[in-house]
Amino acid sequence: MLKENLNSVTAFAPATCANVSIGFDILGFSFDGAGDFVTLKKRVDGKIIIDNIECEEKLPLDPNKNTASVVIQKLCEDLNIQNGFSISIKKGIALGSGMGGSAASAVAALTAFNAFLKKPLSLQELSNYALLGEEAACGQKHADNIVPCLYGGITLIQSTDPIHVVELPVPNLHCVLIHPYLKVETKHARGVLCTSVPLKECIKQSANTASFIAALYQANNALLKKSAQDFIIEPQRAHLVPGFYEVKKAALDSGALVSSFSGSGPTLFALAETKEMALTIAENMQNTFLAHEIKTEFWISKMNSKNAFVVEAH
Amino acid sequence: MLKENLNSVTAFAPATCANVSIGFDILGFSFDGAGDFVTLKKRVDGKIIIDNIECEEKLPLDPNKNTASVVIQKLCEDLNIQNGFSISIKKGIALGSGMGGSAASAVAALTAFNAFLKKPLSLQELSNYALLGEEAACGQKHADNIVPCLYGGITLIQSTDPIHVVELPVPNLHCVLIHPYLKVETKHARGVLCTSVPLKECIKQSANTASFIAALYQANNALLKKSAQDFIIEPQRAHLVPGFYEVKKAALDSGALVSSFSGSGPTLFALAETKEMALTIAENMQNTFLAHEIKTEFWISKMNSKNAFVVEAH
Repeated sequence: MLKENLNSVTAFAPATCANVSIGFDILGFSFDGAGDFVTLKKRVDGKIIIDNIECEEKLPLDPNKNTASVVIQKLCEDLNIQNGFSISIKKGIALGSGMGGSAASAVAALTAFNAFLKKPLSLQELSNYALLGEEAACGQKHADNIVPCLYGGITLIQSTDPIHVVELPVPNLHCVLIHPYLKVETKHARGVLCTSVPLKECIKQSANTASFIAALYQANNALLKKSAQDFIIEPQRAHLVPGFYEVKKAALDSGALVSSFSGSGPTLFALAETKEMALTIAENMQNTFLAHEIKTEFWISKMNSKNAFVVEAH
Repeated sequence: MLKENLNSVTAFAPATCANVSIGFDILGFSFDGAGDFVTLKKRVDGKIIIDNIECEEKLPLDPNKNTASVVIQKLCEDLNIQNGFSISIKKGIALGSGMGGSAASAVAALTAFNAFLKKPLSLQELSNYALLGEEAACGQKHADNIVPCLYGGITLIQSTDPIHVVELPVPNLHCVLIHPYLKVETKHARGVLCTSVPLKECIKQSANTASFIAALYQANNALLKKSAQDFIIEPQRAHLVPGFYEVKKAALDSGALVSSFSGSGPTLFALAETKEMALTIAENMQNTFLAHEIKTEFWISKMNSKNAFVVEAH
């Protein structure tokens, strides 16, 4: 079942920007300017342990508390794998940043694991395992980070049960991700949302989501800008990040086509037509956060980012 | 302002199928297998009167109660037109059928009127006037019939205020419209709808709407079929038409890709890959209605239907 000549595999999984303003829980894109590395090493004792997590903050090594080990445990169980694995994780994505950190760890682990298999699993099968990781991390099987992380580019999740992915045309744009040093737990950011939506808002949001998709196919930036207005989720989460509307305004005033939360925040994203514009936007967003005494870190990457991949195998 | 040498113009406006299952209030397509004709004749006395309405049922000639005359009154007022008009209407679309009858009368009148103008109005300007007609007819400015009626093909309304239309790729499909002899007033069909939607349903519906748009651009019928599932509106309106789910099942069992209400019903639509399939679907839907002792009439037309046009001018 496992390739005999392989002992260690390292995979990279990119950060992801979920929701993309109007696509709550259904849209996301990969962002390979940041990401997690996971190394799996075969063990003969059948145990799955976390050796090491390289990260700015101290994270527990308990394999039941990390998405990387949770998905490997489940896979080994389902495929009746007798080997165990030692897992080392190098986190490039801060936890609770809204950049798909829990998804990236799970997807990097799955991508490494898949390289061991004589008959690798499909992306769809891997998605279903990664969903279990998200469930362990935030209590809900939301797929909008794991799917772009596994598929790359920009993706639409048409259904989660069973998972069905539509790969969309990637716009020729540059993305800024700016992470303010605040922590917003996904669980909490989901908790603030009303469980019902006025029908009128639901229609407006559907119209914008539909025209956003049309804009991608038309490569029509003006339509993209017009469509990327979230009437439902953003207003309910704005208070979680001090200065949110000012920072968003700074982005739009500097020429961003779109700006909103990346996932459930506190990271914000912004889309720009050129790299130079993206840099100006990032700096203006950073300065606006600073005016609120919030320090930040930012990354810039083209939107046509890769999916997770194997970095090293021996 | 009006062309001097023109005295009478007749225009045709097609039936339209609004909502298209998952696009409540935002999607619609034209269906030129049925439609309304409106003739405008110049008058010198400045009056706007309805001369005649050719229709299966008796309709009032009061110009304040017909969408055709309402929009012409408003236009004459706004453009300060001194002439009046005699209006004759030949209705090919039953009122309260869900085939866009009120929209077709308004749009045919506007199209005829526009032919009189030395500087014709844009489709967007005409849309705004047609909206006033819909408001007069059902109390709400819903644009999902008037827009495809004016633009042809399949359209998305990204916003209504101001109106912004996205013209979508028309699938190479055949459409059945089947009208059971029941009357469902749009006002009533809107009245049965809950004013709020569970967030979860809103997300599922958005995902389907988004993938429906992707399916149109990809010309992907399998994705179209998978996406065209309305979790919000259809279940709330099904009881308005006896046997609705059986008739829909008859359509799907006969090979229809999609079937649901046309607009607010009671007319149902179904989409098929060939004309022969469309005919079989229509007959099976008709027989299922008959088992409920409901008589029907049906039309079949390709989905690439024309927008409203001038038939005669002299």
